[in-house]
Amino acid sequence: MSDENTATTADVVAALDIGSNSFHLIVARIIDGSIQNLHKIKHRVRLAQGLSGDETLNQEAMDRGLETLSQMADTLKDIPAENIRVVATYTLRKARNRQAFLTQAEAVFPYPIEIIPGKEEARLIYQGVAHTVAHEGNKLVIDIGGGSTEFIIGEYFIPLQLNSRSMGCVSYTNQFFKNGKITEHAFQRAILAAEQELEIIVDTYKNTGWHSCHGTSGTIKAIREAIVQNGWSKNEIKASHLEKLKQSLMSYGHIDKINIPGVSEHRRPVLAGGLAVLIAAFDSLGIESMTYEDAALREGVLYEMQDRFKHHDIRERTIESLSQRYAIDTAQAARVARSACFIFDQLDTEWKFGKLDYRSLLHWAGLLHEIGLQIHSSGYHKHSAYIVENTDMPGFNQEEQIAIACLVRFHRKKCKLNELPKLSLYKSEQLTRLIRILRIAAILNLRRRENYLSGYTVRVKNDHIELQFPKDFLNTEKLLNADLENEQNIQAEAGFKLSIL
Amino acid sequence: MSDENTATTADVVAALDIGSNSFHLIVARIIDGSIQNLHKIKHRVRLAQGLSGDETLNQEAMDRGLETLSQMADTLKDIPAENIRVVATYTLRKARNRQAFLTQAEAVFPYPIEIIPGKEEARLIYQGVAHTVAHEGNKLVIDIGGGSTEFIIGEYFIPLQLNSRSMGCVSYTNQFFKNGKITEHAFQRAILAAEQELEIIVDTYKNTGWHSCHGTSGTIKAIREAIVQNGWSKNEIKASHLEKLKQSLMSYGHIDKINIPGVSEHRRPVLAGGLAVLIAAFDSLGIESMTYEDAALREGVLYEMQDRFKHHDIRERTIESLSQRYAIDTAQAARVARSACFIFDQLDTEWKFGKLDYRSLLHWAGLLHEIGLQIHSSGYHKHSAYIVENTDMPGFNQEEQIAIACLVRFHRKKCKLNELPKLSLYKSEQLTRLIRILRIAAILNLRRRENYLSGYTVRVKNDHIELQFPKDFLNTEKLLNADLENEQNIQAEAGFKLSIL
Repeated sequence: MSDENTATTADVVAALDIGSNSFHLIVARIIDGSIQNLHKIKHRVRLAQGLSGDETLNQEAMDRGLETLSQMADTLKDIPAENIRVVATYTLRKARNRQAFLTQAEAVFPYPIEIIPGKEEARLIYQGVAHTVAHEGNKLVIDIGGGSTEFIIGEYFIPLQLNSRSMGCVSYTNQFFKNGKITEHAFQRAILAAEQELEIIVDTYKNTGWHSCHGTSGTIKAIREAIVQNGWSKNEIKASHLEKLKQSLMSYGHIDKINIPGVSEHRRPVLAGGLAVLIAAFDSLGIESMTYEDAALREGVLYEMQDRFKHHDIRERTIESLSQRYAIDTAQAARVARSACFIFDQLDTEWKFGKLDYRSLLHWAGLLHEIGLQIHSSGYHKHSAYIVENTDMPGFNQEEQIAIACLVRFHRKKCKLNELPKLSLYKSEQLTRLIRILRIAAILNLRRRENYLSGYTVRVKNDHIELQFPKDFLNTEKLLNADLENEQNIQAEAGFKLSIL
Repeated sequence: MSDENTATTADVVAALDIGSNSFHLIVARIIDGSIQNLHKIKHRVRLAQGLSGDETLNQEAMDRGLETLSQMADTLKDIPAENIRVVATYTLRKARNRQAFLTQAEAVFPYPIEIIPGKEEARLIYQGVAHTVAHEGNKLVIDIGGGSTEFIIGEYFIPLQLNSRSMGCVSYTNQFFKNGKITEHAFQRAILAAEQELEIIVDTYKNTGWHSCHGTSGTIKAIREAIVQNGWSKNEIKASHLEKLKQSLMSYGHIDKINIPGVSEHRRPVLAGGLAVLIAAFDSLGIESMTYEDAALREGVLYEMQDRFKHHDIRERTIESLSQRYAIDTAQAARVARSACFIFDQLDTEWKFGKLDYRSLLHWAGLLHEIGLQIHSSGYHKHSAYIVENTDMPGFNQEEQIAIACLVRFHRKKCKLNELPKLSLYKSEQLTRLIRILRIAAILNLRRRENYLSGYTVRVKNDHIELQFPKDFLNTEKLLNADLENEQNIQAEAGFKLSIL
């Protein structure tokens, strides 16, 4: 990225949000820390509508998504690939058959699609809003998506509370207004369900408190438009307006008959569900008024890219905070990470890891491989994997978490490569290589000593790794020698050659 | 327990240790905090010998165990059941088919058999030794069992380091001296394997340090006897003695030919494996000298029983320490535990929970049900269960951990009773009831408020629970009402009736 004001294509960044209701593409330049929009595209794909009760996504919905992706790929083709980030949320998070969609997408859309966890979505939305609004006290931000609604309280750029709840404008309309009828009873049921969904966070959020409340997302934009166009308010959304809007919707009686100024034809089919969620949020949290902000997930993604370009990677902070929370022996973790990256660098030319950041995966896995010790020393690699796979890791997408979990899972003991997860961003062949590297790095540091090793070299030819130690070193270090011989056997069983010279 | 010196049967306590090599029974009185032995029985069952490579226990070994248990039951019959504790270690921990053994045991041995985790075994061994030896600085205690060896460093009665490693006199003899031949090469391989097993703890143990080193177990007793009878030492065991003993064993060349004064005929077949483990321990940890102590696991169990009688239950301390480590909201945990126990007490008469301490399970599950929140709020009941099942919980046996994990696993969301673990101490029917109680207690406290509830009553007839609230209470608490209605449906799906009045 250049800091100059001249827009070359190298300055242009793009974020695509594969949402449950719409796909949003934003193409922009980041100038002096703020976003200058060049281009925004929104396609109503309504992916969540194709999600069945048993959480499989039907082919019709996939086809709508694929067609849109293919068009967006065309728009993106002049932007450098490393300046593009694509995130997917609720529907692909939930769909059991997401792999089928991702595989089909590869054919028409040549960019990695990151599925991000709900809390990560909440964090990115907050980043988008925090860069847009004035900083005065805590901000409560609410984003009603197609399948999930995010609730965040933050101060300046720091999120204090992050939550993603499984309720959205598409899913709630499907569930409570399925036949299209808009009745008092349907609203009551939808609102009560949303309040139950919120029950577990209400106290914490009230205790944290906020100074201003901000809504993002198409649902809240449409609700605000309706309120303003009806002349009930000039800008703010209040509980009384929501009640009026509810009465108004009920007076139409059926989704097809809604005719409210400011509410587009495309919004109508999902407005009732979205309104029920917002009413429940106002009611449960005791919100007095809300303003609409025109920044959200995709802007958050862009600001985050800018931070990564500047090497302020939130992911490093996440790893640090996990290290503290789980009392990791950070000196040992750093030794293993260092050895692993040293080996990686020797083998990179032959193994061609390429642009995807495999080296970072290895580095992070090194830093986290002992996190499971807090649970139990016996089988700790399994506990490490469990924590990494399930914990909240700001800045990481789902596949990164799964890939790191898989590395720490197999960094010691049996090397069950048939249990490797099937991922779409990362290739099994390369993950296997990372595992082999991490295993060796862990063995080299089993003694947990600084400066224990010096002057070993690593070479690789195809998949045959050669570890060469200084003359006589292994004769005196008989335990290390025995450990490496064990490892040789384990890698051989997994079909790989490891030579120790 | 009486504090008087008169021995009535109510004063008599018994501990049975179902070990991998021998079963040890000790019958004693505890007088003024120390054990007065009444009766000790040791049967060499060599259970570990029946453990195959794929960790199944063969029927011959089971039969030897069952015969011994049946004899021991006869010895125990005059002692009150609540004064008897039976613990099992390595072999039953490992055996996949342990349930088959436990089921057969029920027929001949009417006392619950607790399988204890390795670290718990280490902790109890330390308790046994700590009550026996003088307190001067840190103590390193080593116990070489049939299948596992425990290493503990402690100060006074507090263990500072606890570890159980998978190596023992039976398993190592089987693995490295299988054909009975005792060679330099076999010893080298066995010692190196044991050193690899120890590698991961060596640095920590050396850093913690110790003032005196104590050995327990039959293996170390036999080694000491051999050393003393050979005139190499009057009491202490030193590395040089172990080397001499190794040379001596090698000079016999075969297990069947060993003829060392002080080593009984029964010890000979497993001495080589045990000696290799002890040599590795001396070498890796740099032990200068060791004394033998005639107290171990079973004495630890007895002292622990005494503490429980006095209501100094180590398990309460364990729960407290977990609460801190995982930053549990202890006020909320206490509320749920309290409500659960309140409901339990209303239903106990009808549901006849009996002598086994189901109420404590429920209490502990209440205190730990939110422990998984540290990993992630979404699906936290699963994370809670994972932590409880896998973490090191001093004072708890394996089944207690599994039972508590199962309660927290199903305390919210779907109630998949077909996934209940099959346990031998606790009946599925009663665990199901505890789950139903805990679910209700959790719902009643969803608002996370003190004094929110008052004046509700619970009744049960067969498996039909009736919850009755004060008049109009649920009309004003519509969220609670909705949550309870949900729960009604979930319990109905699981085949149980819950009425809300």
